[in-house]
Amino acid sequence: MNTLDTSAKGVYLIAVTPFRENGELDLESTDRMVDFYIDKGATGLTILGIMGEATKLTADESRIFVKRVLARVNSRVPVIVGASAPGFAPMRELTMSVMEMGASGVMVAPPSTVRTDDQIAAYFDMVNETLGPDVPWCLQDHPVSTGVQMSTGVILRILKNSPNCVMLKHEDMPGLAKLGAIRAASERGDIKRISILTGNGGGLFLPEEMTRGADGAMTGFAYPEMMVGVVNAHAAGDIERAHDIFDAYLPLARYEQQPNIGLAVRKHIMAERGVIDSAAVRKPGPKLTAADIADIERLTRRQEKRLREIQ
Amino acid sequence: MNTLDTSAKGVYLIAVTPFRENGELDLESTDRMVDFYIDKGATGLTILGIMGEATKLTADESRIFVKRVLARVNSRVPVIVGASAPGFAPMRELTMSVMEMGASGVMVAPPSTVRTDDQIAAYFDMVNETLGPDVPWCLQDHPVSTGVQMSTGVILRILKNSPNCVMLKHEDMPGLAKLGAIRAASERGDIKRISILTGNGGGLFLPEEMTRGADGAMTGFAYPEMMVGVVNAHAAGDIERAHDIFDAYLPLARYEQQPNIGLAVRKHIMAERGVIDSAAVRKPGPKLTAADIADIERLTRRQEKRLREIQ
Amino acid sequence: MNTLDTSAKGVYLIAVTPFRENGELDLESTDRMVDFYIDKGATGLTILGIMGEATKLTADESRIFVKRVLARVNSRVPVIVGASAPGFAPMRELTMSVMEMGASGVMVAPPSTVRTDDQIAAYFDMVNETLGPDVPWCLQDHPVSTGVQMSTGVILRILKNSPNCVMLKHEDMPGLAKLGAIRAASERGDIKRISILTGNGGGLFLPEEMTRGADGAMTGFAYPEMMVGVVNAHAAGDIERAHDIFDAYLPLARYEQQPNIGLAVRKHIMAERGVIDSAAVRKPGPKLTAADIADIERLTRRQEKRLREIQ
Amino acid sequence: MNTLDTSAKGVYLIAVTPFRENGELDLESTDRMVDFYIDKGATGLTILGIMGEATKLTADESRIFVKRVLARVNSRVPVIVGASAPGFAPMRELTMSVMEMGASGVMVAPPSTVRTDDQIAAYFDMVNETLGPDVPWCLQDHPVSTGVQMSTGVILRILKNSPNCVMLKHEDMPGLAKLGAIRAASERGDIKRISILTGNGGGLFLPEEMTRGADGAMTGFAYPEMMVGVVNAHAAGDIERAHDIFDAYLPLARYEQQPNIGLAVRKHIMAERGVIDSAAVRKPGPKLTAADIADIERLTRRQEKRLREIQ
Repeated sequence: MNTLDTSAKGVYLIAVTPFRENGELDLESTDRMVDFYIDKGATGLTILGIMGEATKLTADESRIFVKRVLARVNSRVPVIVGASAPGFAPMRELTMSVMEMGASGVMVAPPSTVRTDDQIAAYFDMVNETLGPDVPWCLQDHPVSTGVQMSTGVILRILKNSPNCVMLKHEDMPGLAKLGAIRAASERGDIKRISILTGNGGGLFLPEEMTRGADGAMTGFAYPEMMVGVVNAHAAGDIERAHDIFDAYLPLARYEQQPNIGLAVRKHIMAERGVIDSAAVRKPGPKLTAADIADIERLTRRQEKRLREIQ
Repeated sequence: MNTLDTSAKGVYLIAVTPFRENGELDLESTDRMVDFYIDKGATGLTILGIMGEATKLTADESRIFVKRVLARVNSRVPVIVGASAPGFAPMRELTMSVMEMGASGVMVAPPSTVRTDDQIAAYFDMVNETLGPDVPWCLQDHPVSTGVQMSTGVILRILKNSPNCVMLKHEDMPGLAKLGAIRAASERGDIKRISILTGNGGGLFLPEEMTRGADGAMTGFAYPEMMVGVVNAHAAGDIERAHDIFDAYLPLARYEQQPNIGLAVRKHIMAERGVIDSAAVRKPGPKLTAADIADIERLTRRQEKRLREIQ
Repeated sequence: MNTLDTSAKGVYLIAVTPFRENGELDLESTDRMVDFYIDKGATGLTILGIMGEATKLTADESRIFVKRVLARVNSRVPVIVGASAPGFAPMRELTMSVMEMGASGVMVAPPSTVRTDDQIAAYFDMVNETLGPDVPWCLQDHPVSTGVQMSTGVILRILKNSPNCVMLKHEDMPGLAKLGAIRAASERGDIKRISILTGNGGGLFLPEEMTRGADGAMTGFAYPEMMVGVVNAHAAGDIERAHDIFDAYLPLARYEQQPNIGLAVRKHIMAERGVIDSAAVRKPGPKLTAADIADIERLTRRQEKRLREIQ
Repeated sequence: MNTLDTSAKGVYLIAVTPFRENGELDLESTDRMVDFYIDKGATGLTILGIMGEATKLTADESRIFVKRVLARVNSRVPVIVGASAPGFAPMRELTMSVMEMGASGVMVAPPSTVRTDDQIAAYFDMVNETLGPDVPWCLQDHPVSTGVQMSTGVILRILKNSPNCVMLKHEDMPGLAKLGAIRAASERGDIKRISILTGNGGGLFLPEEMTRGADGAMTGFAYPEMMVGVVNAHAAGDIERAHDIFDAYLPLARYEQQPNIGLAVRKHIMAERGVIDSAAVRKPGPKLTAADIADIERLTRRQEKRLREIQ
């Protein structure tokens, strides 16, 4: 039920980490959030990523949060844990600990210090050695946060060398050509067919990415209905319907994708929707102004209207 | 008629540089492009910017292109020329040359080598000295291309020290809070009121930026109708109408904003619209694939349909 | 005895973290290393910095290592622990834990995400809040590793706002003018007089930095005799002697400062000197080739000869 | 006599561009500088590089300066001109113009926008196309200024694809292993044997680089005697003598290598030596303080003493 393998598809939600107004972990909201994501159609969850404020948690808090999520998910969907780390000893420590708790796999991005094709490939050889033969993992390609440009060639090379790499989180932008080329390589049989989920900007290119061969999305827009709707319409062959749904949510999705304040926007909407109690983001982090909130209100109102029109 | 001063508003188009299929400058298309922009409602033009492939032109070609644009514009609207340069001697040479030909002013961004507030402020003191007392100029704040983060405080400091800086091209993202803070400073009388035109991502935040106090846009989406429509509706006080127009164009505007292939998308659409003969981008530059073009066709078709609905 | 305050001077050694050939922590070598540093004249130690491979240790290993060092130091000199972290919760957790074990203070560098003067100053306000009123701390200014340029002005601003910031680790390059300006500000009484220790490239500018007002060095060259000799000769007013000592070690110190392989060079020499059992660096990390080792041998032999000449 | 081919060796001086105190080009000093370099043993000159303040010259000034240098050199040694440019049209224009005037070849570094192995290789395919079949060129590998990491593999790939690439300017740091690997590839016959000149930090690793297979240096330390002496002693098989000469100059060479103020230090010494009239650096550029000049005086005095000792 909760295994992570190359057949993964649908929508993996990048979960936020809920805090109380005073900054403490909010475990009750965590339960509610897990249920919300799954009720809205999530086929998986990803926790302790950048948008999960992983680096702002103490080691204890991370453990408590992972445990709570896994308990609440209760094997309904796979859970992936972000395990990128500057050193392999902490990467291994975290991985072994979360797998023991019941995680389905981990996600790893390259560190900003690797640059050339050879350095990137050598790094992931060491990742394979570190994770060992029993941990399925997802390769995260997100140049904006890592500074690392992985060419199609080097991604294929990593996939060939990594028996347990079962998924690519595609977040390069522009990435449509790259996504198509990687999918074409597996169609031709050059590499095994892995799952490709796209994470670009909260799904800002999702309809086009599905057309190029993505199996779904891994991202965290506060309206998972958008990603689920687009992916399902696409799977049903109704491309125009996929675009209709996408377009209705796009103005707000775009607003949520502003660098820096994006997470505050996302948590604000989730709090407004009753998913989490507080929109608090831990320091150092952004705060919304009254003008930001007015923008969100207008966009939400317009979104509701548009959604009624396309029913 | 064609002076550049602090009262500038509306839509300044970031012009492309048209080439023939063989890579030569295309001056006939240049004429047609100038007319197209002005017919669609441009209140100004900006040439030789990044999206104008300025660095790919020889010195002679630059001169010929500027001359041709200025002749065709024939004082109908102000023309701003990009004059950012790593050294002050070439910046002065270019500025003096284009002002003599009839340009209305120049645009300058900080070089990537300045980082601290003091370095940034000192740099623009030297810019003022270089441009002299007779050249109106526009300060370009575009961290994504320059790597330079200019705080609200340092921008106000530059504006105070720069009698001839009459315009801010606002392209920081997220920048809504900054835009609001700079406008608030002029409302309070801390600084003179300058023109603020926004360039974020082809206008991807235009309706919200107008609400925060922008005077218009300076950007280059292949449908100038969008920016002109949004700015005019806003000026007329019809905010919902501004959003309706914006939303109709947003799916394609978003697609045109993909890093790297964006310019190829823009030129493709402009060629399709008959504005320029060829979509050619000079090397090193991107090329569209059949799949990209299929995406654009779908988005254009859907856009036309949506525009009819909101008539 | 082991307090950290503004009177700190001399040479604080940036300690390596000794590993066995198989990659395990080597605690016996740790003891020997501590004694070696203090015997050679260290007036303080700094652990868990970049050159201490801090990010490659598990949480448990970090704790064990810090405990071992503190026990062996046994209050002979102050020990500073690197506490830079992307989030404040882990920074606080680490700080409280090491202070309880007996550390004398912590060292904090800005994260790469802060850029403008205001962002930098605001960040250190939060650092002060996080560390609380009882923890003396050292501000690390190392643009090469952080990407953050702190101007003289912003450093003075931080010092004014930070009652417990007692030391500056000066590692900007070029930094002689900045070092002089900060020292001049305390001479004028604009700010309190803090301790300034320099860390540039293993001490590659140490004689000149002492002349500009540094109180000593905080760095990790495998021959602490160099830094101790230069600082002591300088304190005794014998500037030429300081340069003689410096020049004798410079060819090897320069070689140890090569980016990437530098740490491997340092550990190799320390192993050759019998300070640590193995030169092992944890992955991902560099390995020396036979040609590198031949270089080191030649440089060491020449250094010994030169040192005899200047006796 | 003045051809550039794969047999190049010795010391190619990176020439400064002399200005008068008022900032004008100083052509008389240019003549004197050319003679000085050749008298001191230069086997080639490189002009219009970063340390030649190329980007601060107008197009006219560049032409005048190149002409003057070529006239004064009068075919005594080959002259290479820096031709890196963001676009191929200006690269071609500059190259054709200087080759016509009598330059021996051009030098090209990759632009900061290329990152992956494939992007780098594709870029140099276009460089070959741009320069055509008649222009010998030098590949500059300087990650610190370009941000581009070229692996050994990608450099070999470029060399294989570039019949007219006759020289590598090696300035990666650390680069000893890479230099050795590239030289080993030509020894094995995998690629043709090209000339490798090293530019690291004013020659700060020159003796070790010669041992790894470099043919000489291309750099600009104000005492060309150092590079010429080291290269000649090495060629004569006297490695210890090469190190003796190197060590005598190292304290000052290190001081000249400070980022930012380095060029001002170099020009100051050259002015003191009577090579150029003024140490002026064009804005934006550094200025030396009295304390900097005192440092240089002490280092120069000590250098003279040391040179007498090793006679």
